[in-house]
Amino acid sequence: MDFAPDARTEELTERLRAFIEDRVTPAEAELDAELAATPGEWGLRPVVGRLQAEARAAGLWNLFLPGDRGAGLTNLQYAPLAELTGRSPRLGPVAVNCAAPDTGNMELLAEFGTPAQQAEWLEPLLDARIRSAFCMTEPAVASSDATNIATRIRRDGDEYVITGRKWWSTGAMNPDARLFIVMGKTDPDAPRHRQQSMILVPRDTPGVRIVRPLTVFGYDDRDHGGHAEIDFDEVRVPAANLLGGEGEGFAIAQARLGPGRIHHCMRAIGMGERALDLVRDRAGERVAFGRPLAEQGVVREWIAEARIELEALRLLVLKTAWLMDTVGNRAAMTEIQAIKIAVPRAVQRILDRAIQVFGAAGLSDDTPLAEMFAGARALRLADGPDEVHLSALGKAELRR
Amino acid sequence: MDFAPDARTEELTERLRAFIEDRVTPAEAELDAELAATPGEWGLRPVVGRLQAEARAAGLWNLFLPGDRGAGLTNLQYAPLAELTGRSPRLGPVAVNCAAPDTGNMELLAEFGTPAQQAEWLEPLLDARIRSAFCMTEPAVASSDATNIATRIRRDGDEYVITGRKWWSTGAMNPDARLFIVMGKTDPDAPRHRQQSMILVPRDTPGVRIVRPLTVFGYDDRDHGGHAEIDFDEVRVPAANLLGGEGEGFAIAQARLGPGRIHHCMRAIGMGERALDLVRDRAGERVAFGRPLAEQGVVREWIAEARIELEALRLLVLKTAWLMDTVGNRAAMTEIQAIKIAVPRAVQRILDRAIQVFGAAGLSDDTPLAEMFAGARALRLADGPDEVHLSALGKAELRR
Amino acid sequence: MDFAPDARTEELTERLRAFIEDRVTPAEAELDAELAATPGEWGLRPVVGRLQAEARAAGLWNLFLPGDRGAGLTNLQYAPLAELTGRSPRLGPVAVNCAAPDTGNMELLAEFGTPAQQAEWLEPLLDARIRSAFCMTEPAVASSDATNIATRIRRDGDEYVITGRKWWSTGAMNPDARLFIVMGKTDPDAPRHRQQSMILVPRDTPGVRIVRPLTVFGYDDRDHGGHAEIDFDEVRVPAANLLGGEGEGFAIAQARLGPGRIHHCMRAIGMGERALDLVRDRAGERVAFGRPLAEQGVVREWIAEARIELEALRLLVLKTAWLMDTVGNRAAMTEIQAIKIAVPRAVQRILDRAIQVFGAAGLSDDTPLAEMFAGARALRLADGPDEVHLSALGKAELRR
Amino acid sequence: MDFAPDARTEELTERLRAFIEDRVTPAEAELDAELAATPGEWGLRPVVGRLQAEARAAGLWNLFLPGDRGAGLTNLQYAPLAELTGRSPRLGPVAVNCAAPDTGNMELLAEFGTPAQQAEWLEPLLDARIRSAFCMTEPAVASSDATNIATRIRRDGDEYVITGRKWWSTGAMNPDARLFIVMGKTDPDAPRHRQQSMILVPRDTPGVRIVRPLTVFGYDDRDHGGHAEIDFDEVRVPAANLLGGEGEGFAIAQARLGPGRIHHCMRAIGMGERALDLVRDRAGERVAFGRPLAEQGVVREWIAEARIELEALRLLVLKTAWLMDTVGNRAAMTEIQAIKIAVPRAVQRILDRAIQVFGAAGLSDDTPLAEMFAGARALRLADGPDEVHLSALGKAELRR
Repeated sequence: MDFAPDARTEELTERLRAFIEDRVTPAEAELDAELAATPGEWGLRPVVGRLQAEARAAGLWNLFLPGDRGAGLTNLQYAPLAELTGRSPRLGPVAVNCAAPDTGNMELLAEFGTPAQQAEWLEPLLDARIRSAFCMTEPAVASSDATNIATRIRRDGDEYVITGRKWWSTGAMNPDARLFIVMGKTDPDAPRHRQQSMILVPRDTPGVRIVRPLTVFGYDDRDHGGHAEIDFDEVRVPAANLLGGEGEGFAIAQARLGPGRIHHCMRAIGMGERALDLVRDRAGERVAFGRPLAEQGVVREWIAEARIELEALRLLVLKTAWLMDTVGNRAAMTEIQAIKIAVPRAVQRILDRAIQVFGAAGLSDDTPLAEMFAGARALRLADGPDEVHLSALGKAELRR
Repeated sequence: MDFAPDARTEELTERLRAFIEDRVTPAEAELDAELAATPGEWGLRPVVGRLQAEARAAGLWNLFLPGDRGAGLTNLQYAPLAELTGRSPRLGPVAVNCAAPDTGNMELLAEFGTPAQQAEWLEPLLDARIRSAFCMTEPAVASSDATNIATRIRRDGDEYVITGRKWWSTGAMNPDARLFIVMGKTDPDAPRHRQQSMILVPRDTPGVRIVRPLTVFGYDDRDHGGHAEIDFDEVRVPAANLLGGEGEGFAIAQARLGPGRIHHCMRAIGMGERALDLVRDRAGERVAFGRPLAEQGVVREWIAEARIELEALRLLVLKTAWLMDTVGNRAAMTEIQAIKIAVPRAVQRILDRAIQVFGAAGLSDDTPLAEMFAGARALRLADGPDEVHLSALGKAELRR
Repeated sequence: MDFAPDARTEELTERLRAFIEDRVTPAEAELDAELAATPGEWGLRPVVGRLQAEARAAGLWNLFLPGDRGAGLTNLQYAPLAELTGRSPRLGPVAVNCAAPDTGNMELLAEFGTPAQQAEWLEPLLDARIRSAFCMTEPAVASSDATNIATRIRRDGDEYVITGRKWWSTGAMNPDARLFIVMGKTDPDAPRHRQQSMILVPRDTPGVRIVRPLTVFGYDDRDHGGHAEIDFDEVRVPAANLLGGEGEGFAIAQARLGPGRIHHCMRAIGMGERALDLVRDRAGERVAFGRPLAEQGVVREWIAEARIELEALRLLVLKTAWLMDTVGNRAAMTEIQAIKIAVPRAVQRILDRAIQVFGAAGLSDDTPLAEMFAGARALRLADGPDEVHLSALGKAELRR
Repeated sequence: MDFAPDARTEELTERLRAFIEDRVTPAEAELDAELAATPGEWGLRPVVGRLQAEARAAGLWNLFLPGDRGAGLTNLQYAPLAELTGRSPRLGPVAVNCAAPDTGNMELLAEFGTPAQQAEWLEPLLDARIRSAFCMTEPAVASSDATNIATRIRRDGDEYVITGRKWWSTGAMNPDARLFIVMGKTDPDAPRHRQQSMILVPRDTPGVRIVRPLTVFGYDDRDHGGHAEIDFDEVRVPAANLLGGEGEGFAIAQARLGPGRIHHCMRAIGMGERALDLVRDRAGERVAFGRPLAEQGVVREWIAEARIELEALRLLVLKTAWLMDTVGNRAAMTEIQAIKIAVPRAVQRILDRAIQVFGAAGLSDDTPLAEMFAGARALRLADGPDEVHLSALGKAELRR
């Protein structure tokens, strides 16, 4: 259980920290300006391309991906890097091609894709030439329980025919999101966890219709492609587009969740650290009722509480990463659930208080706090609400 | 300390409840459609005019205003009515011409305005022919302490010349907001609470420049005129535009705060009740892990907690209203502070949990929850952050 | 819904306040001394008798009891009086013969007792010549659900025979507790709420055995008779000892709970006010790190929070009392549950922070804080844990 | 930052776990019986001696002490062992001679004592032939700020003369506590942190008077010697009794605090784990409203929350231990403060909920929960209230 960064991680951390501080964070204003200049346009703005070129040249690329195709890091090695990218959530992850949902999709293609699937989709994703979406959640059912999925994937000769309604397909408003990975049921009569399959659907396939974008606390998130509701109406794709075998959809989804959750938590801790940096600056300079905020007991207590929470939760994330690396994602399930519950809400609380320190400015887009708040709040629902995980964790603990 | 509604309040409550339930709430979808059809336009959409015509015809108009010009209700009588309007925060208050910041501005004009000022500005506001903004908060100082105000109002012959920067001027993006009531310092050398004055600035006066809109979380709130940053650069208005006398600005601002705060709290309780209604419907119909949410202990506990908080806080609001009516706003200061602190955060918590019950839908605009959350969150900063009021209240309590 | 005290309540409040402040609170040290001088003795110490004589002479006696036999007050009238007695929990209630469990027992005897039962037990209780216990809770079952009661009451000719095990019989260690009111099942085959009966058992009846005292945290509460575990082994009493009819036990118990709960809440608010008084004094005089605690932001915030909670919850208690007076205990069920949940935990939190202000002294018996904490904590379990009430309240709210 | 237990730690952990589970926990009932049989007697009961003999024979002895005299473990090695002893707080630590305050006192004697002092006091303490107390806290001043200490230590020829009042001298009611280590001021005119000295005072020295025992939530803690208020009235000891040099008292006290705090936290985590074990058993067997508690959502959530908190905080404790071992106590100050704040209150919350699961039984001494609650609650004040540490930590964080 050694959490100390090894030499490679230290070296990468040092370089990535410089990149985030010197190049990415200062570019946030550029992104704002580009977004303001292009109302209604979805997808990555030019600044992202510039940063990606720099990152790739610097060897800060695909850090999330184990194996030869990516940086080949363990979860424990990747953790401090993901945290750093989370300090600038709109630009950091995407600049180093480590942004959800593409990361999870690339993992799936790398692990379960055929050579042909990998050539067609994984390569351009690794190159950041295209982007992708993951279509799992459905509006009509509690899809935190994946066995509720209603979308149908029906075999018809050499094709599969997909019919169903998905929403919260993050990134899908971006026209560059060429690939949709869709979860549906191929056999509703099979055992509960063998009914589902996953299939690759090119964006332009007839029958695919983007219904509308969804907002998160007023944010359309169009900088990275937003969140779409998508209708699949008798959508036909070649049978070769199945990812893995029929009935393997649930297992594949599970494989995707572990890394996805821990990456979210790592980045969320980065958001908490960014908030603390901002609060530190503000508290030092802002005077109210005759004294700087930094000398006011309540603000000090908030800062102390934030530090304590971030330290304890970072360790729990590192332990989780170490467990995933050493005993596997399944054996780390309890820890993955624990951080999935504990990190986003702690970061939400830290952000809520940081907003309070900034006053009304904290509500606006003059600081990244409000948008980070929306992001952290959303994490408490992504992959199922906290309560589902608390209940499962409590049940497991009772059985110990 | 009799909080029971009298006959007139009961009659008004009954009619207003029907109006909100039958006309206003169903119109929320119309508003969304009108907003979607008019991107980038600021101010009231046509649906508001239709509702206002109905409300006025029904005698549900200017309910907030004491005296002959308005409905002539006490704070205690107005409380349940304001709560009802808060159930549909974007449409309810404005439909009955009881929306901030116009309400506070009308109160000021009614109480401190000259007949000429009233004829020019109060009458059209009471008629909903124009709207108005209140320009108090400044970006550069902690304006929760009004003695920090930096805007200058300088006498120059028959005119006053205003120079300064304001922000969070709610409603000011709406071109129909014809009047800005601006707080500034006429005499920085006077005693601390006699330095400020308040002055009426027509929107079109040369030197007035709308710098930009501000967002709250991602909401621009353009349905009601948003929140503006405004630059006043050597803006000249006739000396007769002063509201009250020189040096009375602080006292006038204080007079405005009491009613403003209690109205916010009343409406916030309405938001909490609306959230509970939505949760009740959702919990009854949504099934997760084999049982309706309504049968799951954690959801039941949330609902019970919400009910308890709303009951206790409504009583505290009613007591505050009764105190304001019977012993005056100043004597009710502790209670006004107490509800200003306690109500918004309780409603924020209720909304946070309601969002959790709805899952991802709760984050989007498919329910009013996320936008109400942003509104309740903002109230914790409006008129000074909670912490300022907690400190003052604690200090007063220590002196008892 | 008029919560203002009427003339009689004001007059009683004024006199009782003086009595509590001038006579009762100062006598707390006497009680401590008498307890120290009589280790191992259970029951009221002499100081109580002295205070009772004064109270009776002053007409401050049996304030809790409606009707001719007591002070004849409504719940709303009694509320501020009960709160005052709660400021000195060990002496205040008993000094004016308003201490649980005797209050509830007297209510039962007054409402359901035969003239003979009243002559034998109610009169001496009203005179404070004897005390009593209420034997409901059982060690082996979750007795928050009264249908679980396992004690058997079997008819045998002219007698009833009682067999079972009770615990948490408050006051029963006091040898002056001459009467035990025992709940048991007379007919386990009857409908769920018609199986139970209540019966009067004189302490000295053969087969009654006091098994042991129970402690609350480290307190044995021997000043008022502690909490006993009692074994009833084939205990025979005359048939005339039944309170009400066979099968009426559940209904009688319910009748007892409403007033019992609200009285507890009233007194708990008094504990909270006492804590605030103590904190106010301490914060004014204690200096830490160069400044009085009163000037430290965190302490001020605690005090403000306590004031807000006490104000809001007192109003909720008053509304509950008013409902009980006007529409009856059953119609006030939701509000009774709400205060039962909300008041003790708020007071526990206030006491926890008050202890923190006092430092280690707050843990000891140098202040009444720690013992009041134990008392407030215990209320969260008395008559069923909070969670039972939250669940019931949430269920009711879902059905609205 | 490797937290994995090494081979020696694993071997010790395994043996100590067996000892605690098989010998210590079952002996809790013996301790209760021995205490009941010896009312009013202070100090260790015979069961402790029996367990100590077993522990010493098994080589489970003085585990806390680094160097040759003790087990020679690092903080990181000792952490899981201390946690195990904390599962039975009254018997576990003392059984292996690792109970506060003797541990801290032995550390001081080992580090700062002269050979003569070590021969006279350290040897018998290591042998558990005597016990000791640490006399630091004073009733009249906020002694969380050690510069406030008022006790005077005056040089007079070959002697020092001590005059002052101490309280919360844990263990001092035990007549076997032969040694009092007393902190006082030798030079009030020296620089703030050079005024204090520490001195060894044999219990029987003339002028030492045990004033009274203090209770914690009603507990006198007489099983381990309670908490005493002690008066030192012109107490004369040889000059050779000074521990370290004049003016070194503050530094010595600081040296004592780091290990003392982390040991408390380790044991507190053990209390939390014990509570979870008890809850697990209870929730599995207790039925309420037709279902085992284990199937009720709220109980599951509590258990999950407890597991998450214990995991995260244990890691933070381990990191703190590792820092103390590798960079020293001073460099680990922030982490020591963090765990000092975070662990006791988390364990208090876990115990509060565990009590709630047990109902009234949880308040009594039928489970160890209530007494552990009192212990955890007291830790939030030991060595200064949480708020002092939060403020210091916040201040340090602002300076980063």
